[in-house]
Amino acid sequence: AEEAAVRAQAETVRRLKQDKADPDEIAKEVSKLLEMKAQLGTDEGKQKFVLKTPKGTRDFGPKEMAIRERAFKAIISCFKRHGAEVIDTPVFELKETLTGKYGEDSKLIYDLKDQGGELLSLRYDLTVPFARYLAMNKITNMKRYHVAKVYRRDNPAMTRGRYREFYQCDFDIAGQFDPMIPDAECLKIVHEILSDLQLGDFVIKVNDRRILDGMFAVCGVPDSKFRTICSSVDKLDKVPWEEVRSEMVGEKGLSPEAADRIGDYVQLHGGLELIERLLQDAQLSQNKLAKEGLGDMKLLFEYLTLFGITGKISFDLSLARGLDYYTGVIFEAVLLQQESERLEEPVSVGSVAGGGRYDGLVGMFDPKGRKGPCVGVSIGIERIFSILEQRLEASEEKIRTTETQVLVASAQKKLLEERLKLISELWDAGIKAEILYKKNPKLLNQLQYCEETGIPLVAIVGEQELKDGVVKLRIVATREEVNVRRESLVEEIRIRTSRC
Amino acid sequence: AEEAAVRAQAETVRRLKQDKADPDEIAKEVSKLLEMKAQLGTDEGKQKFVLKTPKGTRDFGPKEMAIRERAFKAIISCFKRHGAEVIDTPVFELKETLTGKYGEDSKLIYDLKDQGGELLSLRYDLTVPFARYLAMNKITNMKRYHVAKVYRRDNPAMTRGRYREFYQCDFDIAGQFDPMIPDAECLKIVHEILSDLQLGDFVIKVNDRRILDGMFAVCGVPDSKFRTICSSVDKLDKVPWEEVRSEMVGEKGLSPEAADRIGDYVQLHGGLELIERLLQDAQLSQNKLAKEGLGDMKLLFEYLTLFGITGKISFDLSLARGLDYYTGVIFEAVLLQQESERLEEPVSVGSVAGGGRYDGLVGMFDPKGRKGPCVGVSIGIERIFSILEQRLEASEEKIRTTETQVLVASAQKKLLEERLKLISELWDAGIKAEILYKKNPKLLNQLQYCEETGIPLVAIVGEQELKDGVVKLRIVATREEVNVRRESLVEEIRIRTSRC
Repeated sequence: AEEAAVRAQAETVRRLKQDKADPDEIAKEVSKLLEMKAQLGTDEGKQKFVLKTPKGTRDFGPKEMAIRERAFKAIISCFKRHGAEVIDTPVFELKETLTGKYGEDSKLIYDLKDQGGELLSLRYDLTVPFARYLAMNKITNMKRYHVAKVYRRDNPAMTRGRYREFYQCDFDIAGQFDPMIPDAECLKIVHEILSDLQLGDFVIKVNDRRILDGMFAVCGVPDSKFRTICSSVDKLDKVPWEEVRSEMVGEKGLSPEAADRIGDYVQLHGGLELIERLLQDAQLSQNKLAKEGLGDMKLLFEYLTLFGITGKISFDLSLARGLDYYTGVIFEAVLLQQESERLEEPVSVGSVAGGGRYDGLVGMFDPKGRKGPCVGVSIGIERIFSILEQRLEASEEKIRTTETQVLVASAQKKLLEERLKLISELWDAGIKAEILYKKNPKLLNQLQYCEETGIPLVAIVGEQELKDGVVKLRIVATREEVNVRRESLVEEIRIRTSRC
Repeated sequence: AEEAAVRAQAETVRRLKQDKADPDEIAKEVSKLLEMKAQLGTDEGKQKFVLKTPKGTRDFGPKEMAIRERAFKAIISCFKRHGAEVIDTPVFELKETLTGKYGEDSKLIYDLKDQGGELLSLRYDLTVPFARYLAMNKITNMKRYHVAKVYRRDNPAMTRGRYREFYQCDFDIAGQFDPMIPDAECLKIVHEILSDLQLGDFVIKVNDRRILDGMFAVCGVPDSKFRTICSSVDKLDKVPWEEVRSEMVGEKGLSPEAADRIGDYVQLHGGLELIERLLQDAQLSQNKLAKEGLGDMKLLFEYLTLFGITGKISFDLSLARGLDYYTGVIFEAVLLQQESERLEEPVSVGSVAGGGRYDGLVGMFDPKGRKGPCVGVSIGIERIFSILEQRLEASEEKIRTTETQVLVASAQKKLLEERLKLISELWDAGIKAEILYKKNPKLLNQLQYCEETGIPLVAIVGEQELKDGVVKLRIVATREEVNVRRESLVEEIRIRTSRC
């Protein structure tokens, strides 16, 4: 009976392939087939594996890791410069922890299979786990960073750095403080990181959920439609106003007049002078929320002026941000132009950082609903990787993927034991050293290995050197060779590689 | 109708709670209820969240992270010392990638819910993803490390460092080389790391799958029972021989004679002299596999002698290792004793590292089944964290969780703007600096913040200092205060914190 089931499943797979069905669908059925076969104890399916990483994910090889480490280093050292602690949370959360936090994006959450026990989901961002952490540990004040992978079942566009598994680098400040001081620091951080990474010109768009809500109110949007109209506005960075307008009116049932009034506002962007103008706006100035938001926006710009970064900041009424949990300031950093002369292919431009204030999220986890004001920023590192990778490729710079200082080699045969003894001494002294895993490797092969991997030194043991108590040290770049007394070898290697 | 469903579900939850059902079960039904309510648009369930991380997982707060970073640093610097590159792979793999690799442990794999598209599972270890990576990229030679979280639906025992989400730190060498040279390096690495972390005395048990299989053959175990009897032997580190024997005979249908012959072998452990003796053993010496394994074991011990580490190595015929994919040398490091005089509570002793040779795994992914010999080691870091955490608690050492060098403070009111200007200068110069997010913080509160968080310096701005073009620098530990010219402040802070 089981074999019949396997045959039926094999037939299903055959038909799907013949019909050129959706590859995901085929992969799924093949997987079922393999599992059935595995249970039957046959292994004929073994060679039919689809050899790939899951859709929307990728491996990082040593070169990509080197680039990743560089970007992380710049970001994390900025977070530390601003006095942040670091935390980590599990990759999955109770499903209910994520429920009701992401609005229309909730459909993109990965759930785990119900294998008995709790219902779990992969984290969608690092903000909700942070809020859960604060509430669970009853922490009110904390400045922390968190660098980790998050998961979204989105349509991947990997060449533009959009993945289903991707890193976020988050910095958040929790606590009840005087207005806009931590908010301004978050923007300073984005400015420092994007400047440091030298990704080209950028602008940081800023808005406030209270200004948006006030604007919706004075434009005649019914309260119940605020969030969904906000989602429509959020699309303005990707699609033109006409399309957004027709979504508002057609799909979401907003009156054409209300939509047009929104249309007038969302084209506005500027600096302090725009804030001043809107504070005088006949409608907006009458709305309590908008007035609060505009007042804080003014204060924010004063602080940003002290930080000397207003040149890259744009108060932009079209900025909405998709996530449900924001309550105050929101912001998003966008790269403006690539240094396209240095690149072979132009890289698409897009958002590389975003964040805002979410004063209600911690309260959603608190048993007594106590407020836990927070503001934070998330650096979208994958897009930054893509740019750094393409730039590196264009530059033809060669990056080393190991830190090995010396290869322990021999020119003659039968010296494996001597090589092992020497390398063991070097390892124990903290020297980064390798050998080739051959009994009798050719000297040429050993030297070639150094050239390929960038190892700067070769320590050569030979019969004569052993008698003399020395090791021949070869400098790969210059081909120079010097005899070094064995007891001085560690020190000599340290001196000669001190720049590494 | 939907409301009726919610009421029915609420009733289910109520009954489960009344019956004091399994908390996992309750959590699951509560979660369903919340989701149903969320869909209905009610939010009365909001405050009933179970505020916890999923079973078998934990958060790492700043203190735990500091300990984690220390352990990682020791381990990763060892891997780099041995010339390893680094890679990273996705947290989930196609389900079929993991199928048939883990024997009886497969039931512990976490599957993702089928939400359309590919069937996915969370990685169970880093070895199978590495083999998949090698095969997919047609890489035959590589020495890499990988530090990442893996997932097992095991019964957690968190106080003993057994989690469902835990880090593995893996080092592997892929490639066809002369026998036992890379294998010996893996053992050297375990020795270096455990010595470096100062976890107390340890022993590294070594065996070989070929010796085990040869032993099973000469003891009269039928071929078809090799793997399952191997699984039984694997339990010998936790349960006594009598129990293992009765599992072999009772559950697995092995003859009592065969079991007893195995019993004689598995109590053997020693060094070179035991290897020599078994090479003369009337039965084993006649078995091709065992002979091969013993020959290689002898070679391994010769190399380990050159590395000077045989004192901590024990050739142990009871060592089996659970995973299916091993084909040659296997090993496991066990902590022998805690320095219990320094600890308040004794920590349970157990395996902290393991590994072995798996020459067939890459071939399972290769379309042509080409062999891809590999050997590697995995450091089980959670147990090490547990020990380091408890040790730190006992020592009362205070660890800093930030690296902040200076707090920018003021003694008078209305100096927020001046504080913001100064801190911005410091950040731009790369100084790690903080301010309190208050308009007019009290000096005492600012000094207390430094005491609590270990910030060594305070830069105090005041009206007089501003006029004089100086900043008052206070050294927290000594309470000493010096006036520093503003243009020298960065340099002065650097000098005074150069030990940090």
